[in-house]
Amino acid sequence: MTIFVLNGPNLNLLGQREPDIYGLATLEDVQTICEGRAAELGLEIEFRQSNDEGQLVDWLQEARTAASGVVLNPAALGHYSLALRDAIAACDVPVIEVHISNIHAREEFRAKSVISAVVVGVISGLGIWGYVGAIEALARILRDRSEA
Amino acid sequence: MTIFVLNGPNLNLLGQREPDIYGLATLEDVQTICEGRAAELGLEIEFRQSNDEGQLVDWLQEARTAASGVVLNPAALGHYSLALRDAIAACDVPVIEVHISNIHAREEFRAKSVISAVVVGVISGLGIWGYVGAIEALARILRDRSEA
Amino acid sequence: MTIFVLNGPNLNLLGQREPDIYGLATLEDVQTICEGRAAELGLEIEFRQSNDEGQLVDWLQEARTAASGVVLNPAALGHYSLALRDAIAACDVPVIEVHISNIHAREEFRAKSVISAVVVGVISGLGIWGYVGAIEALARILRDRSEA
Amino acid sequence: MTIFVLNGPNLNLLGQREPDIYGLATLEDVQTICEGRAAELGLEIEFRQSNDEGQLVDWLQEARTAASGVVLNPAALGHYSLALRDAIAACDVPVIEVHISNIHAREEFRAKSVISAVVVGVISGLGIWGYVGAIEALARILRDRSEA
Amino acid sequence: MTIFVLNGPNLNLLGQREPDIYGLATLEDVQTICEGRAAELGLEIEFRQSNDEGQLVDWLQEARTAASGVVLNPAALGHYSLALRDAIAACDVPVIEVHISNIHAREEFRAKSVISAVVVGVISGLGIWGYVGAIEALARILRDRSEA
Amino acid sequence: MTIFVLNGPNLNLLGQREPDIYGLATLEDVQTICEGRAAELGLEIEFRQSNDEGQLVDWLQEARTAASGVVLNPAALGHYSLALRDAIAACDVPVIEVHISNIHAREEFRAKSVISAVVVGVISGLGIWGYVGAIEALARILRDRSEA
Amino acid sequence: MTIFVLNGPNLNLLGQREPDIYGLATLEDVQTICEGRAAELGLEIEFRQSNDEGQLVDWLQEARTAASGVVLNPAALGHYSLALRDAIAACDVPVIEVHISNIHAREEFRAKSVISAVVVGVISGLGIWGYVGAIEALARILRDRSEA
Amino acid sequence: MTIFVLNGPNLNLLGQREPDIYGLATLEDVQTICEGRAAELGLEIEFRQSNDEGQLVDWLQEARTAASGVVLNPAALGHYSLALRDAIAACDVPVIEVHISNIHAREEFRAKSVISAVVVGVISGLGIWGYVGAIEALARILRDRSEA
Amino acid sequence: MTIFVLNGPNLNLLGQREPDIYGLATLEDVQTICEGRAAELGLEIEFRQSNDEGQLVDWLQEARTAASGVVLNPAALGHYSLALRDAIAACDVPVIEVHISNIHAREEFRAKSVISAVVVGVISGLGIWGYVGAIEALARILRDRSEA
Amino acid sequence: MTIFVLNGPNLNLLGQREPDIYGLATLEDVQTICEGRAAELGLEIEFRQSNDEGQLVDWLQEARTAASGVVLNPAALGHYSLALRDAIAACDVPVIEVHISNIHAREEFRAKSVISAVVVGVISGLGIWGYVGAIEALARILRDRSEA
Amino acid sequence: MTIFVLNGPNLNLLGQREPDIYGLATLEDVQTICEGRAAELGLEIEFRQSNDEGQLVDWLQEARTAASGVVLNPAALGHYSLALRDAIAACDVPVIEVHISNIHAREEFRAKSVISAVVVGVISGLGIWGYVGAIEALARILRDRSEA
Amino acid sequence: MTIFVLNGPNLNLLGQREPDIYGLATLEDVQTICEGRAAELGLEIEFRQSNDEGQLVDWLQEARTAASGVVLNPAALGHYSLALRDAIAACDVPVIEVHISNIHAREEFRAKSVISAVVVGVISGLGIWGYVGAIEALARILRDRSEA
Repeated sequence: MTIFVLNGPNLNLLGQREPDIYGLATLEDVQTICEGRAAELGLEIEFRQSNDEGQLVDWLQEARTAASGVVLNPAALGHYSLALRDAIAACDVPVIEVHISNIHAREEFRAKSVISAVVVGVISGLGIWGYVGAIEALARILRDRSEA
Repeated sequence: MTIFVLNGPNLNLLGQREPDIYGLATLEDVQTICEGRAAELGLEIEFRQSNDEGQLVDWLQEARTAASGVVLNPAALGHYSLALRDAIAACDVPVIEVHISNIHAREEFRAKSVISAVVVGVISGLGIWGYVGAIEALARILRDRSEA
Repeated sequence: MTIFVLNGPNLNLLGQREPDIYGLATLEDVQTICEGRAAELGLEIEFRQSNDEGQLVDWLQEARTAASGVVLNPAALGHYSLALRDAIAACDVPVIEVHISNIHAREEFRAKSVISAVVVGVISGLGIWGYVGAIEALARILRDRSEA
Repeated sequence: MTIFVLNGPNLNLLGQREPDIYGLATLEDVQTICEGRAAELGLEIEFRQSNDEGQLVDWLQEARTAASGVVLNPAALGHYSLALRDAIAACDVPVIEVHISNIHAREEFRAKSVISAVVVGVISGLGIWGYVGAIEALARILRDRSEA
Repeated sequence: MTIFVLNGPNLNLLGQREPDIYGLATLEDVQTICEGRAAELGLEIEFRQSNDEGQLVDWLQEARTAASGVVLNPAALGHYSLALRDAIAACDVPVIEVHISNIHAREEFRAKSVISAVVVGVISGLGIWGYVGAIEALARILRDRSEA
Repeated sequence: MTIFVLNGPNLNLLGQREPDIYGLATLEDVQTICEGRAAELGLEIEFRQSNDEGQLVDWLQEARTAASGVVLNPAALGHYSLALRDAIAACDVPVIEVHISNIHAREEFRAKSVISAVVVGVISGLGIWGYVGAIEALARILRDRSEA
Repeated sequence: MTIFVLNGPNLNLLGQREPDIYGLATLEDVQTICEGRAAELGLEIEFRQSNDEGQLVDWLQEARTAASGVVLNPAALGHYSLALRDAIAACDVPVIEVHISNIHAREEFRAKSVISAVVVGVISGLGIWGYVGAIEALARILRDRSEA
Repeated sequence: MTIFVLNGPNLNLLGQREPDIYGLATLEDVQTICEGRAAELGLEIEFRQSNDEGQLVDWLQEARTAASGVVLNPAALGHYSLALRDAIAACDVPVIEVHISNIHAREEFRAKSVISAVVVGVISGLGIWGYVGAIEALARILRDRSEA
Repeated sequence: MTIFVLNGPNLNLLGQREPDIYGLATLEDVQTICEGRAAELGLEIEFRQSNDEGQLVDWLQEARTAASGVVLNPAALGHYSLALRDAIAACDVPVIEVHISNIHAREEFRAKSVISAVVVGVISGLGIWGYVGAIEALARILRDRSEA
Repeated sequence: MTIFVLNGPNLNLLGQREPDIYGLATLEDVQTICEGRAAELGLEIEFRQSNDEGQLVDWLQEARTAASGVVLNPAALGHYSLALRDAIAACDVPVIEVHISNIHAREEFRAKSVISAVVVGVISGLGIWGYVGAIEALARILRDRSEA
Repeated sequence: MTIFVLNGPNLNLLGQREPDIYGLATLEDVQTICEGRAAELGLEIEFRQSNDEGQLVDWLQEARTAASGVVLNPAALGHYSLALRDAIAACDVPVIEVHISNIHAREEFRAKSVISAVVVGVISGLGIWGYVGAIEALARILRDRSEA
Repeated sequence: MTIFVLNGPNLNLLGQREPDIYGLATLEDVQTICEGRAAELGLEIEFRQSNDEGQLVDWLQEARTAASGVVLNPAALGHYSLALRDAIAACDVPVIEVHISNIHAREEFRAKSVISAVVVGVISGLGIWGYVGAIEALARILRDRSEA
């Protein structure tokens, strides 16, 4: 079973951009950690990043058949991209939203996510561990579903 | 005379996605119906879909010289894409906005369209017939203009 | 089968009032066009206008048993008459809302219709053709229902 | 002593319209129940319904001299009819506002009543019993006043 | 030349209703004063009152051909009746809005008039003299127009 | 069958506090009246008051098994205590909200109750009679349920 | 008896500034007209203009003892100067607010006057005649007071 | 090292209350799962629940010296209890906010948490697993701190 | 004569919690200073703190008979506790609200106090001296009253 | 050391204007009391009033070098004068804002002060004693600073 | 040709006030730089500063005949002075608004300028160079106009 | 040193689209003018345009290493693209925002730019000269930095 880990705009700069907010780990570090934890759980990771809303919508549509679950860090798009929201709503596989920083402790506009209403759950502010937690939660959801 | 029928994000999933809202017809079905009705009216249809805002802006710009009118289903982009709005405002050919579902009977954010102020008219909630109606209305507008 | 075409306040002035917005056709012209198209579709038209909210509520109630569908141009009442909204919600026959002008391209208060959430669909900005389109859409809805 | 029981738009459809919200009793049933309870309390009932705001204003003005109290179910007019509000404010006899359904558990616009500030009290969500309760409350108020 | 003086809901209670706000003069007194001043200015007065929005719309439409100007006290309807607004906008003769009390010194909802944007001018808070002032202003406007 | 009558903060001051708003009857008087009317209806009353939100939540939870219905005067807590709201929503027995004064005729913040959406109904502004009315309504609801 | 006619910022440009809105008459013309009408009514006019909020506050304070009434055209200050508002509230003599243009038919911010709640009345949109009307209204108010 | 797991109002009803939203596991189940996972991580759990805001504030203050970290499910208090917020802000140990249900997919008022800005992070919508995830995240944070 | 000095949630942490905002003095220091100044003014101090809203309401009710005045630092409860507000409104003795920090120079939600409208006055931002000032002001108010 | 006591618009009318709100003491009385208390504290008072915003800005700038602290009663300017705010922010000496009446118990617009965020503290509602309290607070602040 | 460079409240403190925001250059430095650049462009500079709104309105009126263009740094007045706005709107010569600091990166109220809608353009955040840029832009505008 | 001049959606239509707002110069003209002025200042220009948000984010990321500064005309994206905002915030080189038209004098939504808070400065309404001014400002900033 494959999990898509999708990353939105500017996350390719992780580790270089505002490290006091986002930390020093790079997106490659995140990928390595995700793959490691996924392997322990018997899952495969498809790890991608794009600055382009349309590309992310395409990937979410692809996930409908190619993935068992999605970890999505929408970055800034989470605050306004209703196209992303509709793509998630059209996904039958579970999607978990992750934010590295605590979006509630920053500028007011970051506290509002237009996609949260259509994901399964949200992890915010727990750094890159949030990705790991989301993978674990997906593993549990998938196990529960297969057992049901 | 050619009519561009442009479709925004996630409309390629039509028929598969939330069928209780959007119905069972696919986008290919819509294209067939549009082409059929257009042929009766002596019009040609250029039918396209994209998940990408930039692509849709490009097509609207192309329509300025390549089309006599545009039927646009902006999908979620209609609620925030001011770039789309500016592209429409820059179009000299008439643009009609179509929504398959009744956007006023769903989530509150769907009731607001940022492009409605710059289109000729809007058809919402009449299912895929909305496309046909828009083509007929364009035919009438084009006939009136050529007669004037 | 009969379609009620109901018109709200000040529409009796059509053709005389603000013709740059509403055009030169009179309400009688609209009636003639509606009746013509309805005849082609095998439908009868009951065409009425009133400046009185209570009268329009009465007619909508009458339509519950006397009509197979309703085309409603609520005019200004559409922006605040919740009594109209409740009357529509109590209607089992399909109601389509029509606005001659594009209500999104005018004063801000016109962009909000309190009845849109309870009609089947809305056609706005396509001139008196909107009535024709609404009748065609009703014809299709009624045919689909009878076939279902 | 006479109590006016006045009913606003669409209440004549009671029992037929959205029975899961409004129940199966008809307005005639309500009238019978009101008259029964009033008789026990030594009161007479004048029971009326109109879809017309102006008519309701007229009746409220009539109540100033012809009634000892008013039970008013304003229906949708309660959410916007400031004319009704002024008519109530001009009434010297006590007016009690009744809503059959719980207006706070439905669409957001129903939670706001523009007349509540000028009535004596409000009963909402207790079904047709609300009318009975309002009559009892009026009986008590009238008895207290005559004793004072 | 005839001036329509139109009065909205509950103004028939003038003199009896909340006299600390509206004063002790009755609507008949207002009519007498208006007719007196109009006669001095060589104008005739058609003085009417209704509790019904639809009726007031009818009268405003009638004024398009039967009057040279309108003095309108919309009462509570001024705060929400967009049907009235449209009827005024459709009037080619000048309309002046009058409020007996100072609507800005009362409940907040009274400070907003939805018709003020389409009348020539507004007189508020100057008691029944406001009617006289409006007639004088109309006389001046009509004289200016005839001179122009 | 037992009815819980629960009273929120400061209601223990009834009769002493702002008597022009809340009247001269004390909470003991209310209890006596409630018990009297309940006895006539074959119901028992458990009458309590607390200034403490947590205590009221505890009592509402207790009512889930120990009561057949609840009359709740939340006092000021009704305007913000979402904990109370959740406790009511978790209650399977019917809850009726009572306010002694007309909360719509006082400060603006009192017009909004965060619990009204989850109670069966609301009685406001009818003085201490509101308690009696709520008990009668509960009696009727319980009888209807047992009959169904 | 003396009437102060006070004019706020930029009114010294009257006749030169945006004549399509404010007309061609100069402030001197207004003064002449005011003095003429006042003389007929047995009143004296003290006519002043300032671009300075502090100066206008001083004059309003002076009016407390030196004037029998005030006509105030606050110009733009009317939309935000709470200092002006307090000065008016401290005035025992009646103050009437005048606007030459119809402030409700222009930019949205002009529709709100922070002083209207503390003046006797408002005349708006009736051109320079508004000054005359205000003087007449003051004459009537002063006569009524002296008769009372 | 001890972790406080604190639960707000109505969570003692877990498993009984609205199981379609909150699931069938009881709070005891949650405690068992938390203790199990904590033991694996070498942590001790102090697990508590209260319906009382003041009690929760006391416990958060206690945590300042008695705990190494806090998992807090504030339940409804999270939406308005600024006292809780201040208690968290005064805590030097890391606090993670957990919600069992996805608060963004329910009533609008639940989308806003007044404490999120002062916690380390938030986990929402992942069911009772959210508690486990929060404990794991705390373990990681504590390990990082001790290593730093 | 006794003055109640009542302190809300988290003030027991004074001196330890966010000392750059609240300073280094402890609540015991505040008590000592209050008692000292009160003694000079011939007043006694009853000094209390609680994290519990219900407890604070109880104490405010107690103050009605046991105190001549109240100094209240509501802490975070001041921003939402309408129960506290009602308890103050029910108090016949004067209540002064004190905030150690300048609540207007911090987070936006702190700028709004729901109790300020019902206290005699507010002192904010003057550190622990605010308590002393409030006691002095109460002394003056009590002396004025006894002299009156 | 000199303290500037600066007073905004209309405070020169103190004692004459709305005495039920502002009391009977005149501004001269306030000056006498301030000077008396300042003398006891070894401070000198420079006491001024102006109706002019620009003048008050000038004085606040003068205070930067000529005063050790400022007591400022901004009167109505406090609600909108951002120029005053900037002048305070540019002041290195401490500024305390004083309002004689309780601004939170009056019109809604008075509850908002645009300068409170940049002053040291605020005293509101304690009558002319507020000036004395502010002087004492300044004395304490200056003593603390000189000791530090 | 002369350019007026007008500066609003507190700009006379430039270089002393909040230098991290406004820099170390004084207003005299700005004047020198402006005059230098203007001389190169063949323009004369009239450079003024006032803390007084009325004075600035006077100068803007003076500029109508005495200047060919205006550079205006309104300082805090830009956020509320509608009198300034009207004075600019009455100016036939082009006005450019300059802010030394980036008003969008500071307090929220600074992001809104009530005069921007009536100036030709705005330069914000580019330090004192903004004055130079505005002069260059005016030179270009004046040259274009003379050429046209 | 290279300056990136980046242009957002629909700017490729410059000169053809709404010339009364945007003027007759084409984007090629703008490029020529920018290159000319840059050459004089010893700078190179990299001039690009895209209708695609993702592409613009890529270019801003590229500018982090490839450019010394950026001139950005975001067009419609400036009103909602938080992805663009984050990309700018991640840029270490200075970015200046340019709008050809005065965005404050058009539709209300254009007055708000979500990127202004993270750029160095903004030039709006000065036509294509705004690009030149931005280049000059960047040249000055770069010179200041190299000197510092």
